[in-house]
Amino acid sequence: MTQPNFDTLLARYADLLVHTGVNLQAGGKVRVSAPVEAAPLARLVARAAYRAGAADVRVVYEDAHLALALYEDGQDEAVSFVPEWFSREREAMMDDGYASIAIVGEDPGLLAGADPARVGARSKALAQALRPVSEAAASFRINWTVGAVPTPAWAARVFPELSPEEAVARLWTDIFTVTRADQPDPVAAWAAHTERLARLTDLLNARQYAALHIRSELGTDLTVGLADHHVWQGGAETAQNGVRAVPNLPTDEVFTAPHRERVDGWAVASKPLSARGQVIEGIRMRFEGGRAVEFSARQGEDTLRQLMATDEGALRLGEVALVPASAPVARTGTLFLNTLFDENAASHIALGRCYPTNVQGGQTPETLRAAGGNADSLIHVDWMIGTAQTDVDGITASGEREALMRGGEWVLALD
Amino acid sequence: MTQPNFDTLLARYADLLVHTGVNLQAGGKVRVSAPVEAAPLARLVARAAYRAGAADVRVVYEDAHLALALYEDGQDEAVSFVPEWFSREREAMMDDGYASIAIVGEDPGLLAGADPARVGARSKALAQALRPVSEAAASFRINWTVGAVPTPAWAARVFPELSPEEAVARLWTDIFTVTRADQPDPVAAWAAHTERLARLTDLLNARQYAALHIRSELGTDLTVGLADHHVWQGGAETAQNGVRAVPNLPTDEVFTAPHRERVDGWAVASKPLSARGQVIEGIRMRFEGGRAVEFSARQGEDTLRQLMATDEGALRLGEVALVPASAPVARTGTLFLNTLFDENAASHIALGRCYPTNVQGGQTPETLRAAGGNADSLIHVDWMIGTAQTDVDGITASGEREALMRGGEWVLALD
Repeated sequence: MTQPNFDTLLARYADLLVHTGVNLQAGGKVRVSAPVEAAPLARLVARAAYRAGAADVRVVYEDAHLALALYEDGQDEAVSFVPEWFSREREAMMDDGYASIAIVGEDPGLLAGADPARVGARSKALAQALRPVSEAAASFRINWTVGAVPTPAWAARVFPELSPEEAVARLWTDIFTVTRADQPDPVAAWAAHTERLARLTDLLNARQYAALHIRSELGTDLTVGLADHHVWQGGAETAQNGVRAVPNLPTDEVFTAPHRERVDGWAVASKPLSARGQVIEGIRMRFEGGRAVEFSARQGEDTLRQLMATDEGALRLGEVALVPASAPVARTGTLFLNTLFDENAASHIALGRCYPTNVQGGQTPETLRAAGGNADSLIHVDWMIGTAQTDVDGITASGEREALMRGGEWVLALD
Repeated sequence: MTQPNFDTLLARYADLLVHTGVNLQAGGKVRVSAPVEAAPLARLVARAAYRAGAADVRVVYEDAHLALALYEDGQDEAVSFVPEWFSREREAMMDDGYASIAIVGEDPGLLAGADPARVGARSKALAQALRPVSEAAASFRINWTVGAVPTPAWAARVFPELSPEEAVARLWTDIFTVTRADQPDPVAAWAAHTERLARLTDLLNARQYAALHIRSELGTDLTVGLADHHVWQGGAETAQNGVRAVPNLPTDEVFTAPHRERVDGWAVASKPLSARGQVIEGIRMRFEGGRAVEFSARQGEDTLRQLMATDEGALRLGEVALVPASAPVARTGTLFLNTLFDENAASHIALGRCYPTNVQGGQTPETLRAAGGNADSLIHVDWMIGTAQTDVDGITASGEREALMRGGEWVLALD
């Protein structure tokens, strides 16, 4: 049996983003965003969308090097300037029902030398301008998904020991593996996988734990109270427009909303986190009453501090997610330095805004807040705490403990 | 003496686009458009703009392969669909005074296999949507300029006998030569060059010829009546915002507005024309009373017919431009297959809309029309008729002839 060649795999991956990722309907419209380096995949995604009967495809190319130029050579006024019309086109697309396929792949360390205060100021200004868009995405108003392309700079960070060509090829191999693009029928494989995740979320939703208790050999000892009427999600989700889509390819997590005032103890990172063009390593953070009261990082602490200074909600959790240590991403043995992948290799938590869909009836900020959700923040930053020696218990309302994970693996029976 | 290396030349070219091209002022804003393949230059342009004190730089990447995907795989509805909000962001930038640096470089034959009817339908729909933007550009409401990057596909069409790397390198060499980026002080060289062109336009404006008579050995024998109160332009222009800029790099033409009802005789192309992703060769066109009444092309005739079917104005001339056969672009000996360059190697005419700035007091459609300008068309397509054996006479209102060019060269004395 011969392996499909690269072009075949790339076309399959494009099909997967269109069909499984956003599940584009005939006559549907779609926005595709991608780094300039990802043009070959973006073109295939456009073709796949047109073949699926798309009424319109808008491709928007992004270039993080322009931000680097701004941070290095721009005036202060330019750094914080966001035109008044900045988000209007994206809002118009949202209103017109455009699905969204976001392709990521920027160099995870591109902005390591930039002034964290400049990066923080601009990131906050952009997040404010895009708030209507990101809130709509968080509440899954339209179907969206995220994929990735190994840019040479990203691949070189992941595999510094390989030649540039080998690094890109190796990262593609890993991406095709964990997205199942290398399987004979990727769409069918995804249907089976999301079905398994649905059974898991059904079980957890039926339990309605008051809290989770997470411990690892690295020092994590964290009790995460869960929001009232919380909903576990994972795999496929039905957007408000009725389309059932898979927001992340790959995805192996099940996740829900913590209670913003009921998180206590230590969280210790098990993997580096790439955020704002900087790799943040060795995070240790202590929570009291839901609020991060002390934290440190071996590398990138300034960036972490900038992130957490965004607003009060940035000091509290908006997500807790459980991922087995044997998940496909973890099995590759690759540290991707990209959250789309690394968060699917380890249980994790996120600082900042929760997903309204993780709380029953949580579609308004008021109801979300009333249930204990962390409704108000401009950020949502996941970071990994799970390991192959992580134990997770569910704690019921009456204080009983039930084992959910032992040694990083599920101990729930999926019948 | 050593030649500057490629990176130095590229950075100089970026500086030239910012300083000579749009003459960006401190605190000014600029929009940069570029093919995805041109990201390295776009990044340098952004840096040069930030260093010049730009208040904002917006880079928009374009990708003609997406149009190819649409023409090959899209539904008919998708081909003609343009969102209602399509031009709003560009209009907002125009209103906010953003200068514009357009970097071109697409494969001149990319759409050769696409259905000309589809290409024509979409081009017309886009031109209609962008009409406010292109009219504002034509009347030089804001300062703008055009530069180029040799994409591999473009370079391969220009130098099919070279390897891909050699073709790109050779095309860069030609571009650096004709844009004077390879000179020790390109900005000063451009100042001297635009000064020479200004003396030439001053002389021509003082003459106020009623018509030009252009003849070549290829069969061109064309009388081009000029609009009343026409203005010759060339080199630098002052935009309505008061900024003096150079709209094309390179530029060696002086040009003005024909009278839309006073063009008679044969025009025969001296070079291929790249338009709408198709190379059109061997155009022959006969005018009567300003209107093209017959035409043919050896290659790409369908595309030419689609262009001319856009509207009534597409059958009439909006520009006549004189370029000496010894201009720097011509001296390279390269056929660029890109109008930015090829129109600066040969005298040319343009079908479609004229520039309001080519008629004294022509800033409104009414005054422009009253002077005989071709005010109403969605297109403006230049094509080359000049050769090294072309003679041009100016004909005065009283019918006297004055020699302007002989054997493709100016015979006017520049004082």
